[in-house]
Amino acid sequence: MSFDLKAYLETRRAMVEAALDRVLPSEDAVPVNLHRAMRYSVLAPGKRLRPTLVIAGAEAVGGTAKTVLDAACALELIHAYSLIHDDLPAMDDDDYRRGRLTNHKVFGEAIAILAGDALLTLAFRLVADNAARMSDPRMIARVVADVADAAGTDGMVGGQVIDIESEGKDVGPDTLEYIHRHKTAALIRVSLTAGATLAGGRAEQVDTIREAGESLGLAFQIVDDILDVEGSLAELGKTAGSDERKKKATYPAYHGLEASRHKARMLIDETKRRLEPLGTPAEPIRALADFVFERRS
Amino acid sequence: MSFDLKAYLETRRAMVEAALDRVLPSEDAVPVNLHRAMRYSVLAPGKRLRPTLVIAGAEAVGGTAKTVLDAACALELIHAYSLIHDDLPAMDDDDYRRGRLTNHKVFGEAIAILAGDALLTLAFRLVADNAARMSDPRMIARVVADVADAAGTDGMVGGQVIDIESEGKDVGPDTLEYIHRHKTAALIRVSLTAGATLAGGRAEQVDTIREAGESLGLAFQIVDDILDVEGSLAELGKTAGSDERKKKATYPAYHGLEASRHKARMLIDETKRRLEPLGTPAEPIRALADFVFERRS
Repeated sequence: MSFDLKAYLETRRAMVEAALDRVLPSEDAVPVNLHRAMRYSVLAPGKRLRPTLVIAGAEAVGGTAKTVLDAACALELIHAYSLIHDDLPAMDDDDYRRGRLTNHKVFGEAIAILAGDALLTLAFRLVADNAARMSDPRMIARVVADVADAAGTDGMVGGQVIDIESEGKDVGPDTLEYIHRHKTAALIRVSLTAGATLAGGRAEQVDTIREAGESLGLAFQIVDDILDVEGSLAELGKTAGSDERKKKATYPAYHGLEASRHKARMLIDETKRRLEPLGTPAEPIRALADFVFERRS
Repeated sequence: MSFDLKAYLETRRAMVEAALDRVLPSEDAVPVNLHRAMRYSVLAPGKRLRPTLVIAGAEAVGGTAKTVLDAACALELIHAYSLIHDDLPAMDDDDYRRGRLTNHKVFGEAIAILAGDALLTLAFRLVADNAARMSDPRMIARVVADVADAAGTDGMVGGQVIDIESEGKDVGPDTLEYIHRHKTAALIRVSLTAGATLAGGRAEQVDTIREAGESLGLAFQIVDDILDVEGSLAELGKTAGSDERKKKATYPAYHGLEASRHKARMLIDETKRRLEPLGTPAEPIRALADFVFERRS
């Protein structure tokens, strides 16, 4: 492979982590505990997949990482807020995440709820800040609206609700697909399109990237489900098999592991096929698609 | 008084409530429970003070209610989300709000947390939608950023954290003022300035309104604290005296009732004095300031 994914991921992750450190409120500022809680979860080791997709989306239409860094951070903050709230006792009740204590185990439930709220709020400020530097100011509202749609009741939050309501029930493939498309795929997709839009991508380029993002997002969630079945505590940093323990609606539970791997591979291939019109600049997205399929955590 | 506040409040409230019904997702749409929970709290009877302030802010610079209705709804959604999360067992643990069961008592904690998240997210979509119709698109990002700042760690959420952390402690007047300015005043203030900005107010007009909003917001919280001491369950619809029971940091607890009333009156007078440069168009804000002081709930 000519494209050096490892080097690409490392440089992008370093940029994103420096930016996250910059945009998050200081632990020296009041309210200290809230800021500690926000930083604890966001700055925990992670793949930074969503911000890297924002950057790759920008690059695919000829933009650069630098011009979309605030939005890249925003998508990571939304991801982090969703994990903090998902881990709460009233939701998934998880004590560990990526091998570390979950936010509410360290800071208490009240601060964990408020840290999530503050991260979501800050994310919209960052999207607006980033969009304000665009050449076409009419697109500012478009990007904020897209991110809100992907994160809210028509997106991530809606998927999480159906996921919770499906626990312990035998759900059909339609409900399973609803959960995947909304809970995970929406945010993956909007990471790519926000980057492409902010970098000045033309409407048809953004549409191409949106369709690729939809396939990639579904693939990501199926691989996540597979890893939950296969993984071990050491590898995943969370209690593996926890989906099954909670009778969560997952792709492997419904279709089996083999069919799940096949489906994920097909979706990755579809992602790449959909990116063809964009040519070489979309190479980072293609490499990230392979990364999504091959990752072990 | 020549200005008919009662008629003003009634017409504005009717407009706001029709708009809220329109912008909230339907109970027929999936996820049904989430949408029910969102509508349950937002459409509960209320003063609609924040959306009315958005409208009054617009009118004060020559705008109309119609042009800022989406943003007016957004501020009510942010207020509603904050109440849902504040009432949770991990926070204030309140069973009743305005005489009705709190959100988590009806829908469960998980849905209550997610309904709050979804309302906050929808609020930013509405602000962006509203701002997109502005004549000066560069102001779109300004309004989104202002609302985010007032709602997040430098505003409402920050105030809530210090409020929680101060429970059962003897806090000084500085901490008390920090809580009031952040937890309540910031959102009151940004309601006025968002309306004025969206209606095309000039920078010096918006500055005038911001200063008036700061005084009004502080007055509102002091009156709220007084009502908590004085009120009864029937009048307030929540357990009166609950602040004292929880040893919350309040103005009357620190300064006494008489001094609190005096301070609130002074702040209302200051609000009006600050509005003088705006002349007659600011009459609704002045009337709302009197309403804030004289309200019984």
